[in-house]
Amino acid sequence: MREENCIFCKIAAGEIPSATLYEDDDFRVILDVNPASKGHALILSKEHYRNLYELDDGLASKALVLAKKMIVRLKDVLGCDGYNIVQNNEEAAGQTVFHFHMHMIPRYQGDKVGIGWHMGELKEKDKEEILNSVK
Amino acid sequence: MREENCIFCKIAAGEIPSATLYEDDDFRVILDVNPASKGHALILSKEHYRNLYELDDGLASKALVLAKKMIVRLKDVLGCDGYNIVQNNEEAAGQTVFHFHMHMIPRYQGDKVGIGWHMGELKEKDKEEILNSVK
Repeated sequence: MREENCIFCKIAAGEIPSATLYEDDDFRVILDVNPASKGHALILSKEHYRNLYELDDGLASKALVLAKKMIVRLKDVLGCDGYNIVQNNEEAAGQTVFHFHMHMIPRYQGDKVGIGWHMGELKEKDKEEILNSVK
Repeated sequence: MREENCIFCKIAAGEIPSATLYEDDDFRVILDVNPASKGHALILSKEHYRNLYELDDGLASKALVLAKKMIVRLKDVLGCDGYNIVQNNEEAAGQTVFHFHMHMIPRYQGDKVGIGWHMGELKEKDKEEILNSVK
């Protein structure tokens, strides 16, 4: 399953060269060409899925196991102090390429990467509303 | 497997009350009490693992499948426009509770959540060095 003109389909298939750290039947792991920090890598599915909403469950069950394996290995290679795993879905969430991928962003003590958010407070009204809607 | 004085062990076990959206043998999904946006939820493992570095592979294989299931359901409930999945490992990466968890952060067009990073450029030197170290 692939999509015409999808750059990640072409990279995953090896048609466009990439700095590949790992490859298997399901995924290719590459260095991001626009890294947030040294060693920033991406896990791309070989098949085309728009994002996590659509990702095949079989692949979803493998993706985080692979992320774990990669960051355990890479933290020693890079000597980093932590890792953010970030996976964005849709434009409102900062997704720019609409082919499933996960960011593995090495973090170094005192770096300026600054992935975070303003912490609000859970409102009683929102809590009730959401709990009731989910049930 | 649990750790004394770990607040997420207590929440996961139901000893400390939480706004629970979902629960099974392996995970509890709760609303974050300090949400980045309306509906911000956490997936907690019931057993204690410090973070993804240490997470059991069996649980890792279930966590992203669960995240998918939750965000597919919650995007309709919340009417949000996207989702960030964020999983932080170690203090340098912004991890504050040292018990494995994944953030599911709903995003709304025009919100001010602003999870992102400055995009650098992949240096040839770094690329070669990392590729060589991984092989």
